[in-house]
Amino acid sequence: MPLSFDTNMRFKFPIVAICLQLSMIILFGFFVGYENKWQYVQKNNSSRQPDGFLELYALFQDIHVMIFTGFGFLMTFLKKYGFSSVGINMLIAALGLQWGTLMQGILHHHKKFYIGIKSMINADFSTATVLISFGAVLGKTSPVQMLIMVILEIAVFAANEHLVGKILKATDIGASMIIHAFGAYFGLAVAGVLYRPGLRRRRHDNEESAYHSDLFAMIGTLFLWMFWPSFNSAIADAGDHQHTAIVNTYFSLAACVLTAFAFSSLVEHRGKLDMVHIQNATLAGGVAVGTCADMAIQPYGAMLIGSIAGVVSVLGFKFLTPIFATKLRIHDTCGVHNLHGLPGVIGGIASIVAVALGATDKTTMAMQAAALGTSLGTAIVGGLLTGLILKIPIWGEPPDQNCYDDSVYWEVPEVEGPNYYFHENGDHSQLQPEA
Amino acid sequence: MPLSFDTNMRFKFPIVAICLQLSMIILFGFFVGYENKWQYVQKNNSSRQPDGFLELYALFQDIHVMIFTGFGFLMTFLKKYGFSSVGINMLIAALGLQWGTLMQGILHHHKKFYIGIKSMINADFSTATVLISFGAVLGKTSPVQMLIMVILEIAVFAANEHLVGKILKATDIGASMIIHAFGAYFGLAVAGVLYRPGLRRRRHDNEESAYHSDLFAMIGTLFLWMFWPSFNSAIADAGDHQHTAIVNTYFSLAACVLTAFAFSSLVEHRGKLDMVHIQNATLAGGVAVGTCADMAIQPYGAMLIGSIAGVVSVLGFKFLTPIFATKLRIHDTCGVHNLHGLPGVIGGIASIVAVALGATDKTTMAMQAAALGTSLGTAIVGGLLTGLILKIPIWGEPPDQNCYDDSVYWEVPEVEGPNYYFHENGDHSQLQPEA
Amino acid sequence: MPLSFDTNMRFKFPIVAICLQLSMIILFGFFVGYENKWQYVQKNNSSRQPDGFLELYALFQDIHVMIFTGFGFLMTFLKKYGFSSVGINMLIAALGLQWGTLMQGILHHHKKFYIGIKSMINADFSTATVLISFGAVLGKTSPVQMLIMVILEIAVFAANEHLVGKILKATDIGASMIIHAFGAYFGLAVAGVLYRPGLRRRRHDNEESAYHSDLFAMIGTLFLWMFWPSFNSAIADAGDHQHTAIVNTYFSLAACVLTAFAFSSLVEHRGKLDMVHIQNATLAGGVAVGTCADMAIQPYGAMLIGSIAGVVSVLGFKFLTPIFATKLRIHDTCGVHNLHGLPGVIGGIASIVAVALGATDKTTMAMQAAALGTSLGTAIVGGLLTGLILKIPIWGEPPDQNCYDDSVYWEVPEVEGPNYYFHENGDHSQLQPEA
Repeated sequence: MPLSFDTNMRFKFPIVAICLQLSMIILFGFFVGYENKWQYVQKNNSSRQPDGFLELYALFQDIHVMIFTGFGFLMTFLKKYGFSSVGINMLIAALGLQWGTLMQGILHHHKKFYIGIKSMINADFSTATVLISFGAVLGKTSPVQMLIMVILEIAVFAANEHLVGKILKATDIGASMIIHAFGAYFGLAVAGVLYRPGLRRRRHDNEESAYHSDLFAMIGTLFLWMFWPSFNSAIADAGDHQHTAIVNTYFSLAACVLTAFAFSSLVEHRGKLDMVHIQNATLAGGVAVGTCADMAIQPYGAMLIGSIAGVVSVLGFKFLTPIFATKLRIHDTCGVHNLHGLPGVIGGIASIVAVALGATDKTTMAMQAAALGTSLGTAIVGGLLTGLILKIPIWGEPPDQNCYDDSVYWEVPEVEGPNYYFHENGDHSQLQPEA
Repeated sequence: MPLSFDTNMRFKFPIVAICLQLSMIILFGFFVGYENKWQYVQKNNSSRQPDGFLELYALFQDIHVMIFTGFGFLMTFLKKYGFSSVGINMLIAALGLQWGTLMQGILHHHKKFYIGIKSMINADFSTATVLISFGAVLGKTSPVQMLIMVILEIAVFAANEHLVGKILKATDIGASMIIHAFGAYFGLAVAGVLYRPGLRRRRHDNEESAYHSDLFAMIGTLFLWMFWPSFNSAIADAGDHQHTAIVNTYFSLAACVLTAFAFSSLVEHRGKLDMVHIQNATLAGGVAVGTCADMAIQPYGAMLIGSIAGVVSVLGFKFLTPIFATKLRIHDTCGVHNLHGLPGVIGGIASIVAVALGATDKTTMAMQAAALGTSLGTAIVGGLLTGLILKIPIWGEPPDQNCYDDSVYWEVPEVEGPNYYFHENGDHSQLQPEA
Repeated sequence: MPLSFDTNMRFKFPIVAICLQLSMIILFGFFVGYENKWQYVQKNNSSRQPDGFLELYALFQDIHVMIFTGFGFLMTFLKKYGFSSVGINMLIAALGLQWGTLMQGILHHHKKFYIGIKSMINADFSTATVLISFGAVLGKTSPVQMLIMVILEIAVFAANEHLVGKILKATDIGASMIIHAFGAYFGLAVAGVLYRPGLRRRRHDNEESAYHSDLFAMIGTLFLWMFWPSFNSAIADAGDHQHTAIVNTYFSLAACVLTAFAFSSLVEHRGKLDMVHIQNATLAGGVAVGTCADMAIQPYGAMLIGSIAGVVSVLGFKFLTPIFATKLRIHDTCGVHNLHGLPGVIGGIASIVAVALGATDKTTMAMQAAALGTSLGTAIVGGLLTGLILKIPIWGEPPDQNCYDDSVYWEVPEVEGPNYYFHENGDHSQLQPEA
């Protein structure tokens, strides 16, 4: 077997994982302490009660569920790739939240820094970019490749976030641009570099869903959908802005469901709904309203943004994804371009329109446009470079015919169900016990 | 094929969905603004902190999970109807929360109104009625019929809620009467009008669960069960009343589990537990304690109500549902009469007893009885009229033999599982990659 | 059939369940009232707002999800035992939370006592011990045996908790010792007494997972993992200590994921990941950091504890569980020794080290060691006695060949899936309706 397809992870994977974890512990030892009350009061001089952080913690937990259950189960739609989807998602997020804490803290403080619930929210956010990119390469990469991607992508993400927020002083409260568009285009760039002609000769046998895998994926969809208002409002200014972000996201998502269902039915020749659209396009409203979630765009404005995002996302799945795969040689397993990429760009554009209409005075049209541009630019450049590193044939990526198959990297049970089907009768109680 | 069974949804469904969504956006544009801090302070003159709404938001999110994951997965118990259960549940709720916001706001304010977390809680509540009714007709209706039912049922619901709360001034904090009993009897009335003799000749092949569909349904059961204290307390007066509602619901549900399990075993001839009872009757305690959740009925009183509800619900599933289907010609797919109908009525009666015993002075026995009566009355009348509209043979309802089958309205994968079963060995790593 | 294997639960199970529930109602009637605002203010003399309990309620809800969804689904990994895992888990917890409320209240107050959110948290905690022990005997016991174990184990637990907290004045904020180690060794002692030689002649046909049952189990894993910071911080002192407990648990769990994945791959001969490890060992970091969660061990200290726990847990599954089953004649179905037992002991030892290093002045090394010793001692003695009572051959335990099989105590559907596989095409819409 060629070296490049030696998928035996023994030693290779454990050594990388353990070295990374030891590095994290050492770096945390040097740089990271608790944000305790004393520092809290000193910094903010607020009259907040000592345990006021619990309010923010509830929002954090919603986001935490989105990251681990939401993203994890959303990707279980493939019939033979559920273990990897939910398991490697967990691995990526667990490493990413440690590394994200470090990168964001060091960039903002340049020395020892002190962490609390807000850092945990930002750490979870930074993992989201990698999980989005993971969706683009799902089924075609090894766990080692994903660990490397975590380190590289979060470094680029943190740099771009710093650029957008601190230098351009643009606003992107729900992170449409700096997380969703960034993660999608980063992942597409990686997928483009890692393109395998062999996978597109015909549709891969494993690249399809099963009835129950589609239901598992809906667990992910729903937890993402329900908790998205928390995602878009968690780091908003306390008070009105946070309240507005919750209300806008709630209604944008609701409107998006209606248009996603409508267009899913419209584009199929017999008017049937397609689970791929329902699992993904119903979430586009949360992405697209992100950047202007805390602006006074009014509920109907949020609904308009959500409606458009639902339509664009379904059309993307139907018409754009096939073109990407064949013409651009970019194969996007989960269609992250339709769920995160296009709606993220819509989010950036919507914020420019919102500024033009006077919905906020915290930013300018130029700064918002610059933020969108740098997010896309750093994503694509970072993704291309990352793709080149991942292409080095030593990371154990799976051969074409074993793509989208858990059994390459996981012990897999040989039966799929309880097999009650093969019994005449499930009732064994009349059987005699062993003597 | 007769027009009435043209289940091709192309154009029919998208046009209805898009028109409804556009109407919502236009109506929101005219009527709905944000409840911002200034108005908040002006109305309440309270010393609450600006971000105090986050406490209420945590309760909202619990209810949101009940509506989307709870109701959605509870109905996935049918072996071939999981996509519709969780998908159409989402569609209904997404439209219903927009329409519920409008109906409740316009009824209470008659002009432009301002929304916040409390409106979102009430909007989610109003969708619950339709989701309950959906359970009665599950598998026998088209998505277009459900969109129409959302519009009609929430209008009737909002009128009855206004009547009960503002005119009768009855109390129904956990909505046993105005949501649960209302939704159940509305749905039963619709199911009665839409009755199909063909479905009852023999039990339909598709109208049964599979091993894994029953496990998916337990996801719904558990999230409903766990978050029910939030449902029953969310709109209670802050402080003691809200606290009491949480405690009462917690213990009522716990007691209900024991009696539901006990009676499930008791009514089966070999003492076996029945998943239908465990999935549904364990929740009856949450319904039944609803109306008097915030009254001083004491924890043991709540447990008594929960215990009774668990017993009644199991007996309803065992003995009443078959009678309804054969004698009354009302076929109730999910048994909503046993989970929401009977326990809702018990809730109303319990509140009358509680008032008689002096557990509250906020209402009178007569007002509680009137509230129960009007809720049942408007539900049945509203359901009959809605049923007649839904019976018009243009909405694409499925023919008898395709009931309870996702493939009428959904693209369905042809395989059900990962098929590892058919491999001798899940390990493919010794295979050669494509050259 | 011998009496001991009469698994017909009719009458036997309902009578026990109903008697227990009636006893609970009567005892609550005598002993339990609401903790209302007046008492609240009197006790704490705090300036907290009347509805300040809602912050604590959000933490309670996280724990509630861990108990019902977390533990329940974690045990669904067996291919034919999902109904029992999630169903009997619910039954145990529903009885346990009532009985736990009583035992803890009576031990602390000796007379009528008043309950609120904090009591609910402690009630949920007390059920966790039984659910952990349930994991050790999963598949080999009857529902009646489990009801008896609830009553006995929670009584012993409450006594040990009182001893550790009030008499020894040791600290165990995340309950590594008094819940996790206690529950595990209690369960192992029961499993040892109930040992069945027949089950170990060869591996039982039913004692294995299926592809989808492993995915259901991941739902449990993720909700436990995500909400563990709430578990470890819920009863910590408000303010800094609670904040520290959240941060430490978050990072301990993240580090644990990396080492658990690494060692899972390392111990398999082809470097493949094993779902048993991912489902369980990734949680060991939450257990092990429990006792010193609210101490100033620094984030890197928490990560060190988590890393060690992940390694120990995987090694326990790989090497210790087989030895336990063959040499010690203790068969531990879910491997609770590796998830709760060993990491719980690590938690106790870590707290001794933390005290030695000056991370807290609230306790002493001797008291922590004594707490660990009494927890293990009472667990083992309590478990042995409970095992002897459960061994009495009248509780309807299943015969060997029917172990790990829902169909002994549950009505089980005969098909396992939607069987779309057997259709040539899922599209039936061209079929004619019944005339």
